[in-house]
Amino acid sequence: MIIQLTKGISEQEINAIHEKLAAINHKGTEVKTQIGHYIIGIGKGEFDIRNLGNTSGISDIHMVSDDYKLVSKKWKVNPTVIDLGDGVTIADGGLALMAGPCSIESEEQIKKVIDHLVANGVKIMRGGVFKPRSSPYSFRGMGIDGLKMWYELARAAGIKIVTEVMQVSQIEEMYDYVDIYQVGARNTQNFNLLDELGKIDKAVMIKRGISGTVEELLYSAEYVFSGGNEKLILCERGIRTYERASRNTLDLNAVPILKAKSHLPVVVDPSHGIGIRQYVPAMALAAVMSGADGIIFETHEIPEKAFSDGQQTLNFEESSKLIKQLNQTFELRNSF
Amino acid sequence: MIIQLTKGISEQEINAIHEKLAAINHKGTEVKTQIGHYIIGIGKGEFDIRNLGNTSGISDIHMVSDDYKLVSKKWKVNPTVIDLGDGVTIADGGLALMAGPCSIESEEQIKKVIDHLVANGVKIMRGGVFKPRSSPYSFRGMGIDGLKMWYELARAAGIKIVTEVMQVSQIEEMYDYVDIYQVGARNTQNFNLLDELGKIDKAVMIKRGISGTVEELLYSAEYVFSGGNEKLILCERGIRTYERASRNTLDLNAVPILKAKSHLPVVVDPSHGIGIRQYVPAMALAAVMSGADGIIFETHEIPEKAFSDGQQTLNFEESSKLIKQLNQTFELRNSF
Amino acid sequence: MIIQLTKGISEQEINAIHEKLAAINHKGTEVKTQIGHYIIGIGKGEFDIRNLGNTSGISDIHMVSDDYKLVSKKWKVNPTVIDLGDGVTIADGGLALMAGPCSIESEEQIKKVIDHLVANGVKIMRGGVFKPRSSPYSFRGMGIDGLKMWYELARAAGIKIVTEVMQVSQIEEMYDYVDIYQVGARNTQNFNLLDELGKIDKAVMIKRGISGTVEELLYSAEYVFSGGNEKLILCERGIRTYERASRNTLDLNAVPILKAKSHLPVVVDPSHGIGIRQYVPAMALAAVMSGADGIIFETHEIPEKAFSDGQQTLNFEESSKLIKQLNQTFELRNSF
Amino acid sequence: MIIQLTKGISEQEINAIHEKLAAINHKGTEVKTQIGHYIIGIGKGEFDIRNLGNTSGISDIHMVSDDYKLVSKKWKVNPTVIDLGDGVTIADGGLALMAGPCSIESEEQIKKVIDHLVANGVKIMRGGVFKPRSSPYSFRGMGIDGLKMWYELARAAGIKIVTEVMQVSQIEEMYDYVDIYQVGARNTQNFNLLDELGKIDKAVMIKRGISGTVEELLYSAEYVFSGGNEKLILCERGIRTYERASRNTLDLNAVPILKAKSHLPVVVDPSHGIGIRQYVPAMALAAVMSGADGIIFETHEIPEKAFSDGQQTLNFEESSKLIKQLNQTFELRNSF
Repeated sequence: MIIQLTKGISEQEINAIHEKLAAINHKGTEVKTQIGHYIIGIGKGEFDIRNLGNTSGISDIHMVSDDYKLVSKKWKVNPTVIDLGDGVTIADGGLALMAGPCSIESEEQIKKVIDHLVANGVKIMRGGVFKPRSSPYSFRGMGIDGLKMWYELARAAGIKIVTEVMQVSQIEEMYDYVDIYQVGARNTQNFNLLDELGKIDKAVMIKRGISGTVEELLYSAEYVFSGGNEKLILCERGIRTYERASRNTLDLNAVPILKAKSHLPVVVDPSHGIGIRQYVPAMALAAVMSGADGIIFETHEIPEKAFSDGQQTLNFEESSKLIKQLNQTFELRNSF
Repeated sequence: MIIQLTKGISEQEINAIHEKLAAINHKGTEVKTQIGHYIIGIGKGEFDIRNLGNTSGISDIHMVSDDYKLVSKKWKVNPTVIDLGDGVTIADGGLALMAGPCSIESEEQIKKVIDHLVANGVKIMRGGVFKPRSSPYSFRGMGIDGLKMWYELARAAGIKIVTEVMQVSQIEEMYDYVDIYQVGARNTQNFNLLDELGKIDKAVMIKRGISGTVEELLYSAEYVFSGGNEKLILCERGIRTYERASRNTLDLNAVPILKAKSHLPVVVDPSHGIGIRQYVPAMALAAVMSGADGIIFETHEIPEKAFSDGQQTLNFEESSKLIKQLNQTFELRNSF
Repeated sequence: MIIQLTKGISEQEINAIHEKLAAINHKGTEVKTQIGHYIIGIGKGEFDIRNLGNTSGISDIHMVSDDYKLVSKKWKVNPTVIDLGDGVTIADGGLALMAGPCSIESEEQIKKVIDHLVANGVKIMRGGVFKPRSSPYSFRGMGIDGLKMWYELARAAGIKIVTEVMQVSQIEEMYDYVDIYQVGARNTQNFNLLDELGKIDKAVMIKRGISGTVEELLYSAEYVFSGGNEKLILCERGIRTYERASRNTLDLNAVPILKAKSHLPVVVDPSHGIGIRQYVPAMALAAVMSGADGIIFETHEIPEKAFSDGQQTLNFEESSKLIKQLNQTFELRNSF
Repeated sequence: MIIQLTKGISEQEINAIHEKLAAINHKGTEVKTQIGHYIIGIGKGEFDIRNLGNTSGISDIHMVSDDYKLVSKKWKVNPTVIDLGDGVTIADGGLALMAGPCSIESEEQIKKVIDHLVANGVKIMRGGVFKPRSSPYSFRGMGIDGLKMWYELARAAGIKIVTEVMQVSQIEEMYDYVDIYQVGARNTQNFNLLDELGKIDKAVMIKRGISGTVEELLYSAEYVFSGGNEKLILCERGIRTYERASRNTLDLNAVPILKAKSHLPVVVDPSHGIGIRQYVPAMALAAVMSGADGIIFETHEIPEKAFSDGQQTLNFEESSKLIKQLNQTFELRNSF
């Protein structure tokens, strides 16, 4: 159960609630986010909710049958809107587009991408500065210096930044230079990282695990939320199956299911989801029709020369064309 | 390699071609369909194509590097159009819609569905009369008598029929009453069935195997085509993965890939693809945007009372709404 | 529920049982096998079993909560023993070995294999005469003539034959020449084939589907059993997963699970299960320790020259060594 | 390529090697472990190895075609032996057994398990003090205090400890109290954790990812090795597939494959691999026959009362029986 607390609740009142929970064999976990103050009660067995309901300091109680609680739509029907400032939002009635290269490579590369985004009305730029790589001998990204350079250029152009954080120690280091921390598919169940991201006041986008279930993705979001951070975005990016005709199997089924189960925004990454450049636009458009709140895709001036993921990266011409189609598709969907 | 033969080629000329193939260590398989006459040459090693090219009886030679040949787009760039007669076509510039119940249950049920389809401009009705069931104790369908009854009602209303054939002996039995034979997901690699379907002159829709690859689906189509039947439709209907939030994982990646690799029409079945009624429309719309030539979905007057698959079947109101949206979405896609 | 009938039960008595079942809303399916006579009652809802128990013609009633009934261990605790005649048995306290080539190729090849089997005490020879192939242009086996030749040679040497049947029409054609009909992994859910195999009095070995579940394998066996044939063997042969280091993923977990859930013998095929020659022996030995009643593996005089599956086929020296180790391993397991 | 350096090589000599590598367009990564000193050269293109071979400071050069280098068997044919001190070794000709509860729960529980292990000759105890849990509301383990208590009791009994490390900051904290750091299945691709474990001088056991490939497991080991730590153990613990009859699909195929590709020891975890208590012994025995160097399994005085994983945990009687059978099975395998 989720117990919403009143603003300015006293410690004494909180203790009283914990005692009442203990009396019905429930364990209470206190959660204080940027927006709300809650106690999550976990326990089995029957009880009379009225004994709790008329307790001082409680504004509302929601019985949530899902195993994940705070991210469930069962208590919060309205969608969570992510506000990145300067009028840039996610899930606020528009389609959020995020585009950019796989890896941040150079000042010149960043500038070219920013110009492209500005020209096409895209407000959020993606790019990797810390790169998780299967082989220890591969390029691991430009690191924090690359991020700082990118930040200067992006801010000047009014562009927001989404980039991957790989470990706890990077959270603070990156804090001043990111708008959305991305948790990568290999870290979806890195619970310590999730715990720490719960303690900050910045948006976090969690990618579905390489072979993660929809439920596990919601649990991972619950970690961050219960740590104190409500600014969460879920991202479908393809799962691992037996099929080898595509890099991953983009599971668009997950989109309407996540939208029905959770109040959090859902973004789709068709670039990783299919992994082959010529098919990315079709899957991006399909993702919009499946109900996505946003699309994140890879673009680069010359994909053939990209440091990584060139095979699934659109050039600027393809990207411009796709952006127009995405907006038209979203408009049609909105009219339904 | 695919050798297209001239009309009226003599047996002598054919023999001469086989001999030339043998001389370069290739095995020739003669294929005669409703439309064309071919010899498929399979072999390894280098040779000078000019030795073959100027042979009497050959109109064209196509080198196809794919392991499947006749279904490949490498020799036939134009899409295959399926013409069911009476102006009903698939992949001829429009979106083909196929709808109906999981199982054919009764005369009344059929009539209700037909009225619904006619009212909404849908020309092809789906339904099962032979039902593959995991348990031998489950309802196995109304059989051939159900099909005959259905046929009478459908013909009267100008509606075409697509229904599953489960075994060789049913092909002939069903012949006069179907417009499209459907090969189910459990029979995608029932090669004897495919062989026999190659010998008839009716459209065949092959569903992707329960855990079939895109390549295996193309091979299965190659079986039918090389048996003499070009009237083929491919159907994506979801694959088996570890995910349990949906019945299957609808692999829309397969749509643009199949369209790029083959000249055959691609239809998507969102009902089996996600398996949960409330999410079917979103996936149907996404399928159109991914590039599908048609959509096949389940509808029933009262899904809760359907003999099978009620949990993924739309009622007529939901179906009507979806059909409108599908047509609008197709129109937008066509404008791109 | 499974109702075991007395020998010589009259039609009148059977009708009376059906009536009693109907009275409690159960559908009865009569099953008569080589060994027993049963009525399977399927239905929901509570009832007093005593109303049935004291009915004339009933020798026993077993309540089986599994969805598959006749193949469940819940009513038949003792293992099913397959008797192939001439003292060759499966699951009768010994380890059943089946070995031979992927494809039957020639008289000479058969003779060589038979000599090898005889020298090593193996009583059952495997080999394919009807080959399911992904591509229609591949070698499809020697057919019925190959089988007849093989039969003559095998009988003379006291060797039993297990070989794949691909379609209903082959059942009768093959009948006089096989000891065990094998249902291949692509036909595990070819329900018509299973239905027909229920009508004959020969052993049937059902391979697990390419991505079949343990439960589906049991259901497929239920099809044959409920058709009238109790002589059933289950075969684990690897499943399709994302892993590409091996051809399939041999799921030895399935062995103790199948042995716990069903009274039927379980055979393991390590050749297809891992698909790489050098690793086959390790997996064969592991399979014995996991509880298998038998092992089926591929061997050929010169695997490099085999028509098919050479990459997973042992030569005779490897095979001889493995057979000794298998027997020793089985002996140790038996001593536990 | 792996360049083995001579002991006492000078910095000047190392620089000279790097220069020669650069001249053939190879990037050199220096690796210094407890045992060896290497430069890993990564690059494409042809070159004359003699130009490198006669360079001062080089003792040997191995061309390794695998993408992972240091963990490959292609340069180090002899198996890596892990020496935990006090005569406890892994892969030194014996079968290494590791047993214990899922979670460390209390002093009494630890004592009971230690007594059981000592009585059965098991030298390594497993147990979790930091527990990765899907839900943030679940028990997360006793933490470092539990580990210290466990350490005191284990040392007194001559028992070694293997336990999971979840994040970088725990490495130092745990250092004095563990003999083998375990990297869990959710952290197999937590590259920062792997990097840091490369800097210490203690054994590390890496579990295969939840849906990790054999190759990814080898890459993860390469991370640790190239960081400077050769004391590595690989662990197969079941993968995620569509099958639901077992918790995971224990992929014993991985055992002979890993043993063929790498010189590192391979341990199998049948408890997580099948996840159902009654079937654990069969899979443990099968794992030995597949070629495992060790078995890690869960045991608890009263599995029904275990804080976690009780459903797959053996009681002491079952454990004692299994240990005897494992040793006998290993002896038989060794005799082959």
